Formats: sequence, structure tokens, C-alpha cells
Amino acid sequence: MIVNKKMRMPCGFKAAGLYAGIKRARKDMAMIFSEAECSSAGTFTTNRVKAAPVKYDMSVLKSAKHGIVINSGNANSCTSQKGDEDAKRMAELAASSLSVAKDSFYVCSTGVIGVNLPMQKIEKGIKDLSSNLSSSPEALMDAAEAILTTDTFRKEASATIKVGDKDVTLTGFAKGSGMIHPNMATMLAFVISDANISSALLQKMLGSCVEDTFNMISVDGDTSTNDTCLVLANGASASSEIMEGSAEEGEFKEALSYVLMTLACMITKDGEGAGRFIEVKVEGAASKEDAKKLARSVVSSNLVKAAFFGSDANWGRILCAMGYSGASFNPDEVSLIFSSEKGSIEVFKDGVPLRFSEDKAKMILQEKSVSVLAVLKDGEAKATAWGCDLTYDYVRINGDYRS
Amino acid sequence: MIVNKKMRMPCGFKAAGLYAGIKRARKDMAMIFSEAECSSAGTFTTNRVKAAPVKYDMSVLKSAKHGIVINSGNANSCTSQKGDEDAKRMAELAASSLSVAKDSFYVCSTGVIGVNLPMQKIEKGIKDLSSNLSSSPEALMDAAEAILTTDTFRKEASATIKVGDKDVTLTGFAKGSGMIHPNMATMLAFVISDANISSALLQKMLGSCVEDTFNMISVDGDTSTNDTCLVLANGASASSEIMEGSAEEGEFKEALSYVLMTLACMITKDGEGAGRFIEVKVEGAASKEDAKKLARSVVSSNLVKAAFFGSDANWGRILCAMGYSGASFNPDEVSLIFSSEKGSIEVFKDGVPLRFSEDKAKMILQEKSVSVLAVLKDGEAKATAWGCDLTYDYVRINGDYRS
Repeated sequence: MIVNKKMRMPCGFKAAGLYAGIKRARKDMAMIFSEAECSSAGTFTTNRVKAAPVKYDMSVLKSAKHGIVINSGNANSCTSQKGDEDAKRMAELAASSLSVAKDSFYVCSTGVIGVNLPMQKIEKGIKDLSSNLSSSPEALMDAAEAILTTDTFRKEASATIKVGDKDVTLTGFAKGSGMIHPNMATMLAFVISDANISSALLQKMLGSCVEDTFNMISVDGDTSTNDTCLVLANGASASSEIMEGSAEEGEFKEALSYVLMTLACMITKDGEGAGRFIEVKVEGAASKEDAKKLARSVVSSNLVKAAFFGSDANWGRILCAMGYSGASFNPDEVSLIFSSEKGSIEVFKDGVPLRFSEDKAKMILQEKSVSVLAVLKDGEAKATAWGCDLTYDYVRINGDYRS
Repeated sequence: MIVNKKMRMPCGFKAAGLYAGIKRARKDMAMIFSEAECSSAGTFTTNRVKAAPVKYDMSVLKSAKHGIVINSGNANSCTSQKGDEDAKRMAELAASSLSVAKDSFYVCSTGVIGVNLPMQKIEKGIKDLSSNLSSSPEALMDAAEAILTTDTFRKEASATIKVGDKDVTLTGFAKGSGMIHPNMATMLAFVISDANISSALLQKMLGSCVEDTFNMISVDGDTSTNDTCLVLANGASASSEIMEGSAEEGEFKEALSYVLMTLACMITKDGEGAGRFIEVKVEGAASKEDAKKLARSVVSSNLVKAAFFGSDANWGRILCAMGYSGASFNPDEVSLIFSSEKGSIEVFKDGVPLRFSEDKAKMILQEKSVSVLAVLKDGEAKATAWGCDLTYDYVRINGDYRS
């Protein structure tokens, strides 16, 4: 696998991103399009309150796809029947403007909840997007920019693998920020590839990759109504088909996993108000499920997050969050180690608190990116979760007028 | 039931609270004692990491009781085997200083995690407590003060009922503050009564009352390692025994419920950094369990809490938190109403957003105590949960050095 430093447009795809007037003076609509029919896969929020575009996408998951149309600034969530009609209309307009089958577009929305889409602007936007599609990397950057809300930077990742003698590229972009505690999917994330692969295999891989990437991050414990992760693959690399059980499948999965993981970590680093990136690793758990529960519980705890804000080696709160995670483990055999680029320090060993230098701990925890390792003696399973600290800015941003 | 404006000491009980040097210049040890043997009941944290005193109390729950000894400033949690020995020693010292059976004292600790108790100070404290016991209401206030940590005021509640021609009093006190998201128990809460009642009936009532009071509050979603709620009843009112199924049982339960509910709401109002008290009522749910999940999910959501901090009628976040609660409900039939002493305003009706006056909503939500009512059409069940907003002060207090 080669990691592409800049986003690379997979063969046969075009993109566009522009300002349609939904938000104030920032790009707010994006489109992805492939002339060739695509295999596709998707995972969606498990929130019982699903936004209209999520419900629509779930209903058309099975049909061949040509593209995705996205708006930011308005989530089209909790918008009753009118919202459902708008989502469908948005997808069908995109399809008709490019003369493809009407169920061959996905539609995604992100932004404020409970307000109907400004359909006139949306319709004009779709027309403009269709006529501005381009295969340049800049067009992809425009699309990646247009889906952002309170994000402070674009989230992009790209990798290329060899299938036979052909280059196969996977390129993804995402938006995150607040209301981040994905369950079966994340905010909005899109991966496009010129791989030749079936929808069934793509869906299987996506499900498994999302479990260890997007489903292991948390900004604030709130699972959004719009979480969607979509993958399109158009086969335009002209490579042979990636088959289940082949070496190529392994390579493709590694690349997909890399793209999703990179996007997930970028979302966490750009969490609303986040000042510090937190990684929580659990080793020696009885089962993978236990390891995940433990890691997610720690990274989601307000008290742990506030302690990281204060660079405080408050291991008691970490143990406490492990305790209420619902996972099975033996607290009397836990060891806890903090680390960062400045070094590492063990603070709790085999269930016993250690004396440690508070100064050294503070120095380690003042870094922008810090890590906790919890070593158990219950088995062989491990998991990692990612999150951010709880800051004044998080409260300020979310205590402000509706965002 | 008569609500006692001031704490009333039930017959036959004595109390003391004093400064033993564990904390800086604030009372930090308390004792409750009854010469007569007591029936008792207790509920404890469901956190898998249980503090040493919790483990001890659970092991002696069945024996007849004479009292409770409590310290603040140190939780005796995550303190390994030495901690277990210290908890046992603390309880047994209290018992021997008053010449009662050695397993007849409960012990509770609250404060910093992971540091062994300063046993010399504790031992001296127990001696002083035993010789300062008094049946005056002031002694009870001293005890209620001595168990506080970052609390800013004492939590007390007291009620008296008639059993035959006898007065039976129930008086409770508690400590709360941070790490509040009880599950099967709360922080520390103690109720003493001169009722004549069996331990079995007491335990049954306590379990049921805790479910609707302490288990329905949340400050920050973190379930502590020390949560304990204990009830002692010594029969000293000389009333006849309160039997299961009797009218007196109903009265006693009402009084117990009142005392626990009052303490629970006081804990929420005094949540770390809390600026606003939030009540979430759910009506028309399919089951009691669903109603509780919905109410707790809303009151625990960081985004909802931050919106209340900003007095923002952000009903989308409320619906979103209901959606990921795990409860079964139909989002298309939900109605949402905000209210406070300044009036009420419906913002969402039968699944459709309403136009409403933002100014009026802001006026209502700027009150100290605000309420959300979610009306469903799935059944007859209802539940209420209580919490507080997420503020700069919460982040400041918990980002500061270990608390």
C-alpha cells in the first residue's frame, strides 16, 4: 500500500463543491459522480431518530450507483414528511441532471436539525454542481471543503494499492466536529475507489473496518441522527476483480482501513473545542468486545476528559470509567501507563497504585497527543479508542446559539 | 406525612461530626449510632471497581447494625489489600469503641481515589466521635457537613409519619457533587429512622425507591466506585411493627421516597459547576423501562446540557438523545414542551417542528430551574430524570488538580 500525501482522484470519478447559499459565504454543496456504474456499501447511524437522507439511502442501498450529492448547513433531520420528500427529490434531481437511473444517487445532509431544506437553493446547487464536475484533485478538495460544518480543517486520506499490474486508488473525505459518538457509522464519510469489486464484498469489508475505526472514536458521547459512511467503487482502474479470500482483498482492506482510520483520527483531533488528542489502548482483555467497551468507556468519560484538559494523571477516574463500562475484567490486575512524545510513566501496577513523579506525569500529559495503556490479565484481546479532552471551548461552542 | 423543615433526630439515635485532619480545616469524619439494634438495608454502586468500604458493607449487610462511620477527603478506593484491611479496621474500631458486636457498623469513605487512608488520624477520629455523640439536631448537622467534599451545601431531608398513635421519623443526609450517574445507588446517602420494621421489608422498599430517585439523576455520566445508600431503623419510636401490605407500609414508603427524592434533587442542584437544574419528564412511553431510558439519556447528553447552559431551546439535540437511548419509541409522534416558572412553550408537536418565539423560549430557559416534557403516543408509562447543565465551571473544577 502506498499512502498518497495528497488526495488522488480515482479513475473515472469527478467531483465538485460550491457555495449554494445554504450557509453564510462558505461552500455548502458537493457532488461525486462516476460515469461507470459503481458497486457500493454503506453504514448508517443506529440512532432511532434517523434523518431523511439516511432513511432514503438505506432504501436504495441495493441499486447500482453513480454518485453522491451532499449539502451542509442543514441536516434535513426531524423535518417530518416534507423532509423525506426533499431528500428523495434531491437525490433524483442529481440523477436526472446527469441522465442516470433515478435511484443511482445517494444523498447526505449535515447541519442544523429541524429546519426544512431550502429547496430552491438546493435545486440550483445541483444544476451548478452537475455542470462543474471535474476530475482534478482540486475539485475533490472543493467537495471535501463543502461538507464541513464547525470543522476547522478538511479531513482527507488517500492510498493506492497494486491489483495485478494496475494501480487501484482509494480516496476518502469526511466531516466531523460535535455530536460524535458513532455507532455503526460516523458523521459523514465518503470513500471512492476505482477498484473492481462487488457490492457484497465491499459491504462486508466496510462493516468490519468501521467497527475498529469510526465506531471507536468519541467527541462527546452523542450519536448523531445523520451518521453515514458510503463507499463507491467503479472498477475504472481496469484491474481484475478483487475476490473474497484473495491476497488483493487483504491489500484492499488494509487500504480501506487506513483511509477510514485516518479520517476517524482527524475527526477526533478536530472535535469541537478539542485541545488534546487522546488514545486509549486496552490489552489483555478477555474478549474483543470487553476490550472495546473498556477503551470506549474511558475515552467517553467527562471526568477523564476534563482531567486530560488539566494534564492531570488522574488514573482513578480511568479505572472508575473502566469499572462502569459493562465489560468483564479483574480490577485487581490492571496496570495503567500514560505516554506521549515526552516519554511514558506507569502509575498503577497489578491493581496497586505506584508512587510516581507528578512533574514527569504533567510533562508527558501536556503534549497535544497523549496515550493511556491499560494492561489486563484476563486474556489476549486488545482494542484502541480515540477521543479528545473536554474544554471550555466545547462548552462555549455548544452553549452558543443553535449549531 | 409531615415534612420537617429542619432535620429531626429520630428517637434513640445519636450523631457526631468533626475535623480529624484528613482534609484541610473542614469537618471530615461522621458517626451515626443507635444503642438499640437496627434493621438495615443498603444499595451499592454497580461499578465493577468497588471501593474497599463498599465491599466491606456488602459483606456485613445481613448482620444487625448499630451505626455508620464515615470519612470524607479519601475514598479508600483502588487501594489494594491494605485498603480492604483499613475499611474493616475502621468499622470494627467504631464498634469496639461503643462496645457493640464487631460487624454491627457500616463504613463509608468519599474523596480522592488511590491513596491509602491516614489510619492514625482515622483512629483518633473514631475515638473522638464516640465520645462526642449527641442526640441534638446540631450533631446531625455536623455529621451531614462532615461527609461533604466539593459540595457547596448540606443535603438533608426529614419527614414524620404516624404509626398508630406514635410518631415515626425518617431523616436523611447525603453528599454528591461530581462523578454522579448512580446505578443502583448514589454517592453517599444515609437515612435513619425510629420505625419498627424488618430489614427484609426495608431492603425491598429501598430498592424500589432508589430506582425512581437516585438512579434517575445525573451530573456527568460517571458512576462512582463508592456509591452507597444505607438505611437504619431502630424501632425506638415504640410503634407497632410496619408490616408488608399495611397502610403504614404505604405511608413509610411515601416518606422514604420523599427523603430520597429530596436528597437526590439537592445533589443534582449542587452538581459540580452546575448553574441550572434540569428536569426531564417523559410521558406516554410503551414501558416504564423505555420511559426511564429516554429521560436519562436526555438529561445525560453533553450537547443537551451545553444547550441548557446557553438557554438555547435546542429541541433537536433532545430528540437526538432520545434516539440513541436504546428505548423503543416512535419519533414521528413525539411532542416536546419546555417550561419553567416563566411559562411554557411547545416546540415540536406530533413529530413536526413548530414555529415558536425564540425570545419567549430564551426567557423560559434563563430560569435556574427548567423542565422538558416529552409526550409520546406509545403507551401509558412515564418517568422523570434530573440533572444539570454543562458549564465552564464543571470543566474548571475537574480540569484542576486531582479532586
